[in-house]
Amino acid sequence: MADCPVLFEPSGRRVSCSPGQTLMEAARQAGLPIASVCGGQGTCGKCRVRVQGALDALTAREEDLLSPEERAAGYRLACQARLRGPARAFLPFAEQVAYKAAVWGPSPPRQPNVHKVYLRLPPPSLSDQRADLERLRAGLDRPALEVELPALRSLASTLRRANWEVTAVLVGGRLAAVEEGDTRDRSWGVACDLGTTTAAVYLLDLNTGEQRAASVALNRQTAYGEDVLSRLDRAHAGGAEALRRAALETLNDLIAQVCREAGLSSQHIYEATLVGNPCMVHLLLGLDPHAIGLAPYIPTVADALDLPAREVGLEIAPGGNVHFLPAVAGYLGADAVADALAASLGEDERVRVLVDLGTNAEVLLSRGRELFACAAPAGPAFEGARISCGMRAAPGAIDRVWLADGRVQVHVLGERPALGLAGSGLVSAAAALRRAGLLSDRGRFLPERAPAGFFAQGRDGPELVLVPEDASGTGRRLTLTQRDVAELLLARAAVAAGLRLLLQEAGLEEKDLEEVLLAGSFGNFVDREEAMEIGLLPRLPPERVIGLGNAAGAGAVLALLSLPMRRRAQEVARQIRYIELSAHPEFREAFVRAMAFPETD
Amino acid sequence: MADCPVLFEPSGRRVSCSPGQTLMEAARQAGLPIASVCGGQGTCGKCRVRVQGALDALTAREEDLLSPEERAAGYRLACQARLRGPARAFLPFAEQVAYKAAVWGPSPPRQPNVHKVYLRLPPPSLSDQRADLERLRAGLDRPALEVELPALRSLASTLRRANWEVTAVLVGGRLAAVEEGDTRDRSWGVACDLGTTTAAVYLLDLNTGEQRAASVALNRQTAYGEDVLSRLDRAHAGGAEALRRAALETLNDLIAQVCREAGLSSQHIYEATLVGNPCMVHLLLGLDPHAIGLAPYIPTVADALDLPAREVGLEIAPGGNVHFLPAVAGYLGADAVADALAASLGEDERVRVLVDLGTNAEVLLSRGRELFACAAPAGPAFEGARISCGMRAAPGAIDRVWLADGRVQVHVLGERPALGLAGSGLVSAAAALRRAGLLSDRGRFLPERAPAGFFAQGRDGPELVLVPEDASGTGRRLTLTQRDVAELLLARAAVAAGLRLLLQEAGLEEKDLEEVLLAGSFGNFVDREEAMEIGLLPRLPPERVIGLGNAAGAGAVLALLSLPMRRRAQEVARQIRYIELSAHPEFREAFVRAMAFPETD
Ligand code: FES
Ligand code: FES
Repeated sequence: MADCPVLFEPSGRRVSCSPGQTLMEAARQAGLPIASVCGGQGTCGKCRVRVQGALDALTAREEDLLSPEERAAGYRLACQARLRGPARAFLPFAEQVAYKAAVWGPSPPRQPNVHKVYLRLPPPSLSDQRADLERLRAGLDRPALEVELPALRSLASTLRRANWEVTAVLVGGRLAAVEEGDTRDRSWGVACDLGTTTAAVYLLDLNTGEQRAASVALNRQTAYGEDVLSRLDRAHAGGAEALRRAALETLNDLIAQVCREAGLSSQHIYEATLVGNPCMVHLLLGLDPHAIGLAPYIPTVADALDLPAREVGLEIAPGGNVHFLPAVAGYLGADAVADALAASLGEDERVRVLVDLGTNAEVLLSRGRELFACAAPAGPAFEGARISCGMRAAPGAIDRVWLADGRVQVHVLGERPALGLAGSGLVSAAAALRRAGLLSDRGRFLPERAPAGFFAQGRDGPELVLVPEDASGTGRRLTLTQRDVAELLLARAAVAAGLRLLLQEAGLEEKDLEEVLLAGSFGNFVDREEAMEIGLLPRLPPERVIGLGNAAGAGAVLALLSLPMRRRAQEVARQIRYIELSAHPEFREAFVRAMAFPETD
Repeated sequence: MADCPVLFEPSGRRVSCSPGQTLMEAARQAGLPIASVCGGQGTCGKCRVRVQGALDALTAREEDLLSPEERAAGYRLACQARLRGPARAFLPFAEQVAYKAAVWGPSPPRQPNVHKVYLRLPPPSLSDQRADLERLRAGLDRPALEVELPALRSLASTLRRANWEVTAVLVGGRLAAVEEGDTRDRSWGVACDLGTTTAAVYLLDLNTGEQRAASVALNRQTAYGEDVLSRLDRAHAGGAEALRRAALETLNDLIAQVCREAGLSSQHIYEATLVGNPCMVHLLLGLDPHAIGLAPYIPTVADALDLPAREVGLEIAPGGNVHFLPAVAGYLGADAVADALAASLGEDERVRVLVDLGTNAEVLLSRGRELFACAAPAGPAFEGARISCGMRAAPGAIDRVWLADGRVQVHVLGERPALGLAGSGLVSAAAALRRAGLLSDRGRFLPERAPAGFFAQGRDGPELVLVPEDASGTGRRLTLTQRDVAELLLARAAVAAGLRLLLQEAGLEEKDLEEVLLAGSFGNFVDREEAMEIGLLPRLPPERVIGLGNAAGAGAVLALLSLPMRRRAQEVARQIRYIELSAHPEFREAFVRAMAFPETD
């Protein structure tokens, strides 16, 4: 009984729901999961969605959390609003969190793990009764070739349908599939980057090394909590299987999407490489991540792994393989190793630092062949969580703030009214206030020095008014609070303290740094000058601060195209000297010392 | 709601059923499947069962198929009779198709594929953050140890629950499981013999080589047809998945049974070995067996295979392995290789022949290190099919026939009225008639020479009356027809012609044979003298005709206990020179020549 059709704008996706389902469920069903911090409890208010149509009346929680303006504009909490009939919902966020899939890095020696061999086999006869597999093995001159059961299952019919002219697909030296005729020109692989917030899949032609399609989506696990720790809690409370499925569906949808885009079948995708932080990888594999969350932060496995795609649940060729790049520690995952791989870290004599800013900021330092790394507890500020008006870098997000003409000026992503403050906007606002002398080095607002109208009185003290309520897209005033600045300061302190300890470990000082690399989507949006101004990045000439885009994804691509790069990833993982900050005797002190903005020039 | 307790005699097994369930379902639930030819349609009458208790009244089909005597004695059709309350059923058939699990053969060098290592690992700390798997690998001193996903999934919790004292289970050099504490004394394996008619499972202690339990049951596929060809047809007509499940359920029930019997958990069974004819193995693995059934009779795979138990569907430890012994050709399977292994064929200088009589009779000839084999199309006579009153060797089956005191005398298995004629009874009847001069060498009855009452006129001519209707357990006369004798003669001709060609291939004559080995259940029941009299076996002093019992099962046991025996099986499979009879220019002539009983002494 599905009599509640829901149309999602702007994508035009449609789903059929039953009366009583929430909009949150409808969106998940449509493959457009809506972020939630409270897990659908109706307390975080993050799941605001504009909707028209037949829905139940506002719940008490919605009356609490939605402003009169929001209500008037048709906003509801997706986790609370229940369908009663046809509806139309506006979900620009969920679809447009995508950052451009930038594959960066050295051009690797092309040597994939997938190998296709075209064979014309002699047909069997009463005087040559070899079994199909033995005949094929002889044709390949590999009498002991191991075989995947799905390949075996279709072998007899394929050989006969193909009149004994087939293409054998070898993955990692095992027979993964047998195909009718000569299919050597069809050989694909996918590189998967499973991030806590977003997931990206790149479709590569294994013959040419060319990227054929790429797609990015919200990790559906965000519906169960925004950051890694809330996922760990959820998994521990019996939600592990739901989280596993959510991650799997996210990746499988992306795989289906890139296949559609490139116009090819997932049956010809024989291998996937996968990177992600250890928590994401554990949840995807159904491994218990609990021990990662508690000192001494131990993952079940850190080394590289190869597993049958069908056992992992990835919808590529059933005989295909999934290669998981190696991790280093519970909070330094394959994503960081892939970052290093893509940036060729540890392969030349330069002193370089790579920073990937997320809830945990990974900081990697290379000095010649030596690699040092740590995971700094930066908190979720850069992803918008715990920031009063925070949101991800997506249309409607403020990504720059400056003061001019006696006014607070903002730039908004996409051509639309502002909806919230992105991490890059947070950095920008703090830098602007510092420059104007309106923010102390300890992060205190100095409203008494500001023109009238800059600051307003909020619940917890003065707030910088970014967008007044009549200009915002939410109907509410968008502001920066004292508490937001404190969150930013905590993040800055964590990263700075982490870098300081790495430098110390390497016997270096900040002035020795020759290059700063910024990985991840944050690096695409943040203004590097401003990041240096507020001390989030070490001071260097701007041309030596380089944004890598999705370096983790790029590393997964390299490992997909090249077995030598796969081996290099393993080397990198072993090479890295991991500094556990929570165990480091000097971390706390360095952290406290860094809890201040640097002097302005 | 289960208020129909059913007690099965003589085993004493009990199950709880719901009102309306059939006895057939109850029996299956009890692990005592009842054979059916019509698939429970109520048309074949093969599911007759004696029962007392609360059941629905006779159905129309039962009134049709059951004689008044059968009805009076309490017989019902198990597929028709529905339970209404407590009942007690007599199922000697289903339980006693079991032939004694005779494990015969050399005592192998004990060297299983399963290896347990007890470890006390150093717990992790902030100064030793190795991942669980890497810690375990280091403890085992095997840094590249491969791992099964189920073992990985429970690794973190097991290590912590066990306080870092665990037993690692290595199967074939891969980590299959990790167990709390020291479990080295618990290491089991199962040897599985999947026959067309019956399946047997032997539970072995891999530490001691001791057999702990054995169990035999009807292959549930018999519900879909009695012989291999009817199964092939069924599979081709879309029934492959049902047949796969039926075979799997048969084996999984047997595994559960031997575990119950030995009082242990299937979680500690880490490996299974499996033998069966190629058709059975293909159906179990979900491989398309179609090409086996058509010239040139090609299986998908003949070499030995190792596959994860969970992928095959066998319910042993989820990280366990299944080893499939190698086959030779489409009609010479792993069961024949296992026969040869158990009989040490090809390991000494003697000239020996091994015969396994079934629908296809496998004949193996060894001369020193040389092995020759063929599959002779004997037809289903020995298994009771196509014989007018045929049935399997089971209680109620006539297994011996002789003429004395001017009467036809019979011996019936079990203490009960005769129900049908077993393969051994068929051989016996023919031998008796030959001795008395009542059967020509071409298989024609000579009733004119017989005392009155020996023969009666049947539908197709004279029939030997084995049991008059007032003495039979079915209420109908049990007879041997001319057509039955013709079936036997066909079987005799096939086996004799096969053996002749093997001898010729080896440059030998029948008189060179030093030993005849009889494998399979038929060998346990048949009178060897009589089998020689009618030319089914070559003439030899009776003490040199040896019954091996279930040699195929014994071979599976050897391969389970001993990797050298597993390698030997592969050697045997390669060593065998397989003679395809249907392609042999002289087979037809040899066959026609053997279509006569030998002269009586
Ligand atoms: S209010 Fe938190 S998800 Fe809806
Ligand atoms: S009559 Fe055929 S199974 Fe019951």
